Amino acid sequence: MATSAARAPGPMTARPIDGRARARELGAALADEVAALHASGIRPGLATVLPGDAGFGARAYRRRLHRLAAELGVGHRTVELPAGASQAAVLDAVRSCNDDPAVSGVLLLRPLPAGVDQATVFGALDPAKDVEALHPENVGLLALGAPRFVPATPAAVFDLLDTWIDGTGQDRDGFYHRSRIVVVGRSATVGVPAVALGCARGATVSSIDEWADRTGGIGRYTRWADVLVVAAGRAGLVRAEHVAPGAVVLDVGINAVTGPDGTVRTVGDVDAGSVAARAAALTPVPGGVGPVTDVLLLRSTVLAARRAATAAAGSRAAS
Amino acid sequence: MATSAARAPGPMTARPIDGRARARELGAALADEVAALHASGIRPGLATVLPGDAGFGARAYRRRLHRLAAELGVGHRTVELPAGASQAAVLDAVRSCNDDPAVSGVLLLRPLPAGVDQATVFGALDPAKDVEALHPENVGLLALGAPRFVPATPAAVFDLLDTWIDGTGQDRDGFYHRSRIVVVGRSATVGVPAVALGCARGATVSSIDEWADRTGGIGRYTRWADVLVVAAGRAGLVRAEHVAPGAVVLDVGINAVTGPDGTVRTVGDVDAGSVAARAAALTPVPGGVGPVTDVLLLRSTVLAARRAATAAAGSRAAS
Repeated sequence: MATSAARAPGPMTARPIDGRARARELGAALADEVAALHASGIRPGLATVLPGDAGFGARAYRRRLHRLAAELGVGHRTVELPAGASQAAVLDAVRSCNDDPAVSGVLLLRPLPAGVDQATVFGALDPAKDVEALHPENVGLLALGAPRFVPATPAAVFDLLDTWIDGTGQDRDGFYHRSRIVVVGRSATVGVPAVALGCARGATVSSIDEWADRTGGIGRYTRWADVLVVAAGRAGLVRAEHVAPGAVVLDVGINAVTGPDGTVRTVGDVDAGSVAARAAALTPVPGGVGPVTDVLLLRSTVLAARRAATAAAGSRAAS
Repeated sequence: MATSAARAPGPMTARPIDGRARARELGAALADEVAALHASGIRPGLATVLPGDAGFGARAYRRRLHRLAAELGVGHRTVELPAGASQAAVLDAVRSCNDDPAVSGVLLLRPLPAGVDQATVFGALDPAKDVEALHPENVGLLALGAPRFVPATPAAVFDLLDTWIDGTGQDRDGFYHRSRIVVVGRSATVGVPAVALGCARGATVSSIDEWADRTGGIGRYTRWADVLVVAAGRAGLVRAEHVAPGAVVLDVGINAVTGPDGTVRTVGDVDAGSVAARAAALTPVPGGVGPVTDVLLLRSTVLAARRAATAAAGSRAAS
């Protein structure tokens, strides 16, 4: 436990958690699965709906997925929408994906155009193709502990954490049962599902948001974390003084920072330089949660394709 | 803040939070609303599905609701199922409620008969009549911060808390933004939605379960709570040493305890005798969360009836 007085007090250097290596492992297994599906005539495919309003991060995500899908044998097409597209146009794009048998999973990039209601759009998506698990029914199934799909980013956080626990030789259940997980940020895509996944593992889970920072600072919560998941979208929010010695820190932030010389770098929400000296383990940005997220989104797409094929076979058998 | 060093250290006696008085207030407003609906020809009605396997607590809840519904002018009927009813029989009962225009809300009491899958049954319930918000879509809408219905028990917890805050003259937002809410227990009906409601108010929220108790005791989490919500279903689980001086304690437990003389009393999950000397406020059992829960379940039933009437008027106008 990070909060244990028995912990060695000396300085340490966090073991970086290598997301790229884990992504390669997961990707190799997924490529084999896709090859086997192709042999049975099943061809998984992802459609990415890209509003013209989507920012740099969303476009970079789409490009990475496109490349990775090609590597793994998963189909990928982009449905581009003009900037400022109407809600009707976004709904049309979603329905065309719902109706397309070559599309097994749909990723709808954000931000959506101004005036488009996100809840309406996700509610219109076929829940069986909603690989991000943002349709209310899929959000509910996850909260009830029986997910249809696990959203890729928090799935990647817990995959890396599970793998790290295994690497230390600890028992996963034992680790989670005695651990306090603190999740910073409450987005529908990361913070909210991360709380559900931590609870499903039997950990004690705390959810904090910007108000904790404004009313006394986040440190009085984060300093008690055995596992700290940071998904606030603010560069350098978490510094060494916010972290217990020996904590495991998972950094979900992806922020573009322009240096004094004009160069742009990608950094996380964690000030890696100072936190590395206190934490037991830390996911780097880039190269931590991100690469695993990409593979897991495609893995959900493959799962959706397999389920669709099973359902189709079942309805053929019944007719 | 309960955790503030500035708090007066002396002994105190918790102000009991009077759930019966609050229930009367809410009930009076609801009776007026029902009378107005009756005048427009709208007659809200609750159906309670009572499996033969349901225990003493469920039967007592049904009786209380039946009496209260009559007082407030809400229709109520009980759909009794034999003990050991099959899943098909439970689903038939649910569908008959879905199809009955006199039923605006459905309460499905538990435990369901052995072998009946709760997720399947709640998934079959019309989401627009699911006043307990246990259909996955309704669970998801709550987790996304846009609930169709708020489950009555956690709604009662936060109603009493909001009312208590108002009574102290504090600003609600200010109170929640600087407070840590600790929820003990993770049931789909109380613990999970209570976390969502706490987050929606901008508080820091922690969810703990039986593992916290088994691996070091719940005190190391509960002692940091400004607001402690206890819904573990274990009599006397929370004692004075688990509570910070000045905390607000909401006891959701309803446990039947047999005394040495054979008499049966209802007690909560909180050892009221010892905790009252430390907490700033405490909901008693009975007479705390329970009476407000009853009214709020009927209020959701009335809301469902109003929405159904609006939807029917809309479709008449369109045709």
